[in-house]
Amino acid sequence: MNNRPIQLAILGLGTVGTGVVELLQNNLDEMTRRTGREIKITHVGTRRNRTDIPTDIKQSADLLAIIQQDDVDIVVELMGGTTTAKEVILAAIEHGKHIVTANKALLAEHGNEIFAKADANGVKVAYEAAVAGGIPIIKILREGLAANKIDWLAGIINGTGNFIMTEMRDKKRDFADVLAEAQALGYAEADPTFDVEGIDAAHKLTLLASIAFGIPLQFDKVYCEGITKITQQDVRYANELGYRIKHLGFAKRRILDSGEEGIELRVHPTLIPKQVLLANVNGVKNAIMVDAEPVGQTLYYGSGAGAGATASAVMADVVDMVRALAETNDSTANLVPHLAFQPETLNNTRILSSDEMITGYYLRLQVKDDLGVLAEVTRILSESKISIDAILQQPAHDDTSTDLPVIIMVDPVVERNMNEAIAKIEALDTVTDKVIRIRLDELMQ
Amino acid sequence: MNNRPIQLAILGLGTVGTGVVELLQNNLDEMTRRTGREIKITHVGTRRNRTDIPTDIKQSADLLAIIQQDDVDIVVELMGGTTTAKEVILAAIEHGKHIVTANKALLAEHGNEIFAKADANGVKVAYEAAVAGGIPIIKILREGLAANKIDWLAGIINGTGNFIMTEMRDKKRDFADVLAEAQALGYAEADPTFDVEGIDAAHKLTLLASIAFGIPLQFDKVYCEGITKITQQDVRYANELGYRIKHLGFAKRRILDSGEEGIELRVHPTLIPKQVLLANVNGVKNAIMVDAEPVGQTLYYGSGAGAGATASAVMADVVDMVRALAETNDSTANLVPHLAFQPETLNNTRILSSDEMITGYYLRLQVKDDLGVLAEVTRILSESKISIDAILQQPAHDDTSTDLPVIIMVDPVVERNMNEAIAKIEALDTVTDKVIRIRLDELMQ
Repeated sequence: MNNRPIQLAILGLGTVGTGVVELLQNNLDEMTRRTGREIKITHVGTRRNRTDIPTDIKQSADLLAIIQQDDVDIVVELMGGTTTAKEVILAAIEHGKHIVTANKALLAEHGNEIFAKADANGVKVAYEAAVAGGIPIIKILREGLAANKIDWLAGIINGTGNFIMTEMRDKKRDFADVLAEAQALGYAEADPTFDVEGIDAAHKLTLLASIAFGIPLQFDKVYCEGITKITQQDVRYANELGYRIKHLGFAKRRILDSGEEGIELRVHPTLIPKQVLLANVNGVKNAIMVDAEPVGQTLYYGSGAGAGATASAVMADVVDMVRALAETNDSTANLVPHLAFQPETLNNTRILSSDEMITGYYLRLQVKDDLGVLAEVTRILSESKISIDAILQQPAHDDTSTDLPVIIMVDPVVERNMNEAIAKIEALDTVTDKVIRIRLDELMQ
Repeated sequence: MNNRPIQLAILGLGTVGTGVVELLQNNLDEMTRRTGREIKITHVGTRRNRTDIPTDIKQSADLLAIIQQDDVDIVVELMGGTTTAKEVILAAIEHGKHIVTANKALLAEHGNEIFAKADANGVKVAYEAAVAGGIPIIKILREGLAANKIDWLAGIINGTGNFIMTEMRDKKRDFADVLAEAQALGYAEADPTFDVEGIDAAHKLTLLASIAFGIPLQFDKVYCEGITKITQQDVRYANELGYRIKHLGFAKRRILDSGEEGIELRVHPTLIPKQVLLANVNGVKNAIMVDAEPVGQTLYYGSGAGAGATASAVMADVVDMVRALAETNDSTANLVPHLAFQPETLNNTRILSSDEMITGYYLRLQVKDDLGVLAEVTRILSESKISIDAILQQPAHDDTSTDLPVIIMVDPVVERNMNEAIAKIEALDTVTDKVIRIRLDELMQ
């Protein structure tokens, strides 16, 4: 066994990169007690020279030079972005370096190519930090639940979105108002599109779904709906009905009527029962609920972002690699396939179109104060084989409105039927506005 | 790479053993897709012959013969007990077999000896199933959080106890009544001592503390208090004050006034705030909250017992071993030390006596309806440097009583001071009964 220190190059010294440098300074003893081998940063890739890091670490802006150095075993990519990061990672793999990255966008969009290249070059790409920050969900799915058949998972995997939904509920504030605060607090970017439109969650869901089901990464097939249209009114009605609205990523395996297997990949606001743990995950926290056979339902909760949580995940990957390298001292070392399943066994299970997805629904209609309207609406739903779970006619929260809101909750239904029914309902004279629809899931086994 | 199947001997065919056999039948394809290598049961150790398992599996009651067979790579011990199980495991280790076990009592009490022997013989003993059933908490602590310094953990790690506490709260039933139901449902044994006195939780806490802090297993130093004295009255007062009573195992690292580091290992009923996730873990479910630096607080939830959850954990260990064996094909293979830290680096950090522990407290006093009594009680608390967080004087729930209950919640205090104060309070003429004391923890960072 070769016991020289394992040498890291850290590319990118933003919040997370700096967090990793600090973590190694603070917890090196604890890590060495665990691994039996020292871990050392030899290079950092940074555009401008930094005076706040140890002087024995070489600094350079020339990333393609760093990844070729002999005193680098593992390249830790923390730059973000999908252009330079991709180029540098592919080059590092060609030079036989192992990769640790937090870059969910890069892997969701180009992971199939990157993992294939890594396998061909006998190196590993680890990405615990790419999903749900400090929660070791990649390890849990790839290893901890390795004996299970995973049926579905549902996750709060974007902290910004969850902060906004939590504030809207607790403080009765509007979306735009909370978003502005999230930006001021640094939870949301100046351009919040990735967070509030669900793109960041879709990147993470892409990774989770692959390692749960053993399918290639297919970001372009994720159905993605943001939280920008959620109103205070719906948050309150949901609450009165015993639900909370959460922005969730779902990956679900289903047997279709044809007998074929299909997979739903979807990110959207969802009403879930108040009393389930997932509904009680507040603020910027993340959580993933997994339903698997035979373990049943398990849930994993923690910080999804921030320097400390992300550095924790990055260094957990490094520790895994140190252990593998210490054991075999060869560059093919690693025991877990990139996407949990052996590459040649990945399934081409069809990712279902949104038309084919099945979910419950919360519907809010604005209707004229006319007794006949409910009869017409229930007839339309029944024609589309949609079963009503509850109807609630409420006085308008907004006193200035002359119309009445009607809330209808329906049992899980194929989306095609729902679309058809809503088109008919919106065509009624007595329905005065577009139907508001938010998906609903009881999260039961 | 040697690709012959990995061969298992399953010792013990009770609920869990049968669950493992079934899991391998149901999910073998899924596991083989993950590992790239077949897993096969070649032997089962069972007292009476079983007709419900595949005929190609050899059955025998002679465990010491089974563990010597050449067609056994991994011995899976699911018998329970600490006598035969210990003898068989030590013999298997001597014969160069890897061990997977769900036996928390055996490891908590004899793990130091067993792990030392395994290390000396170049084999591994895996025990994911020994703590919290299907929640992969051993992997999470040993690997997922490997870069962290763990400050404390608090766990609901006995499902029977949590079922009883949940029913007492939700249905306003008494301890004895719920216990009888738990026994009827098969959640509790005919002799429920291990569960309701906290011994089972103490076994699990022993294991968790070692891998969290890097200390030897020290079951005999765990402070252990059961739930048998919790009354309906205290459950209700706790609820009125915004708390729930949970039976928790705590492992906590502290710097003492002397500058020395000390560790608290304790199992006891605890008031925790209603809104924290841990307070919302109901029924037979388990959950462990971990507070670590830099990841912050994370929580892990799932089924703590039952055939499916336990089999999931057992087979996760097997899959880990299969991966390690496939990679290196030698019997020293394994990348994670038994107790998370390298054996020679385990610390002899002192386990604190109960006198030295620091927790908040809920106190319930029965007092004569005399205004002076509160002044006396607060003076006594103040003399022992105990800071009062809240006082609540309530009408007695029990109308037949002439005395009044007084509830006092105090901030964290060294137990020695609390004992001293309570002795003085109980000596007061105006205090008519023993003081009821239940620990309290806000679970804040």
